[in-house]
Amino acid sequence: MTPRTALRDPKQDRSRATRRRLLEAAVACLAERGWSGSTVAVVAERAGVSRGAAQHHFPTREDLFTAAVEHVAEERSAELRALSAPHGEGRVRVVVEALIALYTGPLFRAALQLWVAASYEEQLGARVAALEAKIGRETHRMAVELLGADESVPGVREAVQGLLDMGRGLGLANLLTDDGHRRERVVAQWAGILEGILAAQDSAQDPGHPSRAVS
Amino acid sequence: MTPRTALRDPKQDRSRATRRRLLEAAVACLAERGWSGSTVAVVAERAGVSRGAAQHHFPTREDLFTAAVEHVAEERSAELRALSAPHGEGRVRVVVEALIALYTGPLFRAALQLWVAASYEEQLGARVAALEAKIGRETHRMAVELLGADESVPGVREAVQGLLDMGRGLGLANLLTDDGHRRERVVAQWAGILEGILAAQDSAQDPGHPSRAVS
Repeated sequence: MTPRTALRDPKQDRSRATRRRLLEAAVACLAERGWSGSTVAVVAERAGVSRGAAQHHFPTREDLFTAAVEHVAEERSAELRALSAPHGEGRVRVVVEALIALYTGPLFRAALQLWVAASYEEQLGARVAALEAKIGRETHRMAVELLGADESVPGVREAVQGLLDMGRGLGLANLLTDDGHRRERVVAQWAGILEGILAAQDSAQDPGHPSRAVS
Repeated sequence: MTPRTALRDPKQDRSRATRRRLLEAAVACLAERGWSGSTVAVVAERAGVSRGAAQHHFPTREDLFTAAVEHVAEERSAELRALSAPHGEGRVRVVVEALIALYTGPLFRAALQLWVAASYEEQLGARVAALEAKIGRETHRMAVELLGADESVPGVREAVQGLLDMGRGLGLANLLTDDGHRRERVVAQWAGILEGILAAQDSAQDPGHPSRAVS
């Protein structure tokens, strides 16, 4: 670390804080009002930032909202990585619950609004498709790591992908009503099914250690 | 049947045809333009119907679009029922593919737009939540019947529900890009898993007929 980066520039700090406030206000706004109710002006007001300052950080509406979803997705990824792979009995269920929780919070609600708007708003289409693909790859990578899934075993990759597709569907089912009670039972059942698949994978690879945990 | 109902009234026939044209145009409009681009006027023009006639059938925008999604959902249900439960080897995969296909066509795209709009449009909220619950129950009922699932066996109900949640998630993944290739592999894998669960259910119930088909 050089002395230059160690000495913080208060102006840069303020700018970073403003940017962060705008991104967080943008996600909350999208989740609550949808794309049609989400403009740079509404977000600037919500964040307590002048419209000029908001436009300095994000020249267009598309810049602001795609950056917001990307920012929150990166934060959620960092949280999930910090969890680190749990060990021992019941670890698959813990991981599956943490993965499914990605799809039932405000981030998913915001991403869903952006995603659906991108299906008919030309300016959003390609950008959101690229963002969605990036977030999807990252979530899949984390799921594989946390579950200790060996994708070289036939079917394991598709089993993990199907689980994440189910998470997306459960998030959608939670959009208008609190689906928590039903979801809990579905998740318990599918976590058990996945546990069986992963145990079979482990014993196929390494018969001496059938319940081998993630290294 | 009385002579009165046997003799068709041409005026009523025309009215029914107009209504149907409006409903079909409304679904196509929602799927292509989203809620914010879908008005009674746009749909009337698309259907080749006067605005007054459209308003006679559907006094409000909410009436038109919720009726449209309900109408198309009923048509899809009727198609699926007409398929009748297939028999023999591979039947689970055939049924799973037909169920997942419910979530990748224009109906799902239209329902998704309405659903997402209902999360921030107050006039839509309660109506769409009720409609979603109704369509969800009907789809679940058909899935149970076509798969020959016995929900009295612990876990079977949740396994079927998880499959439909996965279908919803796969529909979402198909919104911005053609996800058909990946989806095919995921569906094949989870159809195999479900087949195992249903075979275990059947042998638990009826050990003499382990591969008993739906009666």
